[in-house]
Amino acid sequence: MANLVTVSRVTVIVDGKLEDQLVKRFCKLGAKGYTIVECRGRGEHEIVEDVLSGATRVRIETIVQPSVATEIMKYLHDPQFINDALTVCVETVQVDPGDRF
Amino acid sequence: MANLVTVSRVTVIVDGKLEDQLVKRFCKLGAKGYTIVECRGRGEHEIVEDVLSGATRVRIETIVQPSVATEIMKYLHDPQFINDALTVCVETVQVDPGDRF
Amino acid sequence: MANLVTVSRVTVIVDGKLEDQLVKRFCKLGAKGYTIVECRGRGEHEIVEDVLSGATRVRIETIVQPSVATEIMKYLHDPQFINDALTVCVETVQVDPGDRF
Repeated sequence: MANLVTVSRVTVIVDGKLEDQLVKRFCKLGAKGYTIVECRGRGEHEIVEDVLSGATRVRIETIVQPSVATEIMKYLHDPQFINDALTVCVETVQVDPGDRF
Repeated sequence: MANLVTVSRVTVIVDGKLEDQLVKRFCKLGAKGYTIVECRGRGEHEIVEDVLSGATRVRIETIVQPSVATEIMKYLHDPQFINDALTVCVETVQVDPGDRF
Repeated sequence: MANLVTVSRVTVIVDGKLEDQLVKRFCKLGAKGYTIVECRGRGEHEIVEDVLSGATRVRIETIVQPSVATEIMKYLHDPQFINDALTVCVETVQVDPGDRF
């Protein structure tokens, strides 16, 4: 596709209680925006937790420069999150060069 | 992965009031289907708007041929949307050759 | 991005009545977790069905090893699903090598 530029999209699945903390940090690290969807699911950590706590889960995605994605990945692998049911991946996406990310 | 073919997935985050207009146009441009999820979030435009209007936001995705993705990207960068809080990106995805996109 | 490893993300859009069956099978095939979001949409099959049945639709995603993605794709193209409004695609995503998928 002509004229598009390559950036990164980071997708995080996490307990809703961490939403505010994470999106504030993502913006500090350079994200210009983010999108949140309520979700549910299962992972290695969260089966018991969800039953006990009734916790909500959110899916956060943010389209950022690759260097910002690297910083977000580093942050999410900080030891403070080691006991959280946190899933994260990074993808390559293409955007219009006139759009700011 | 053997046997899969490469197509494009377009993801658009936009005010819910534009949903009908956009999906109709996407189908006219060649999309065979689309998926919509209610979402919330923040971007450069929408912080104030959401507070004033209580607008809902939707995440629309559609899997299409690369040429259709190009047409959708052109359409979404039409001047009529210049004041809308509209985020869009295109990704490469793989699908079964027997599935129609 | 340094240090990341490449895995696959499978996204399935399907009638909510199939959710349990599919996620159980995905886990049997090797998925360590999955995320589900309620969605709505349109495809070639589902226009009439949704009107008649009021069926809910879900978007299931699971991050897995490429070999597991292949098995999931095979399973979803089993003749048993031939009349279902089922959309599926596979993408390449990057994850931290310390995270288990």
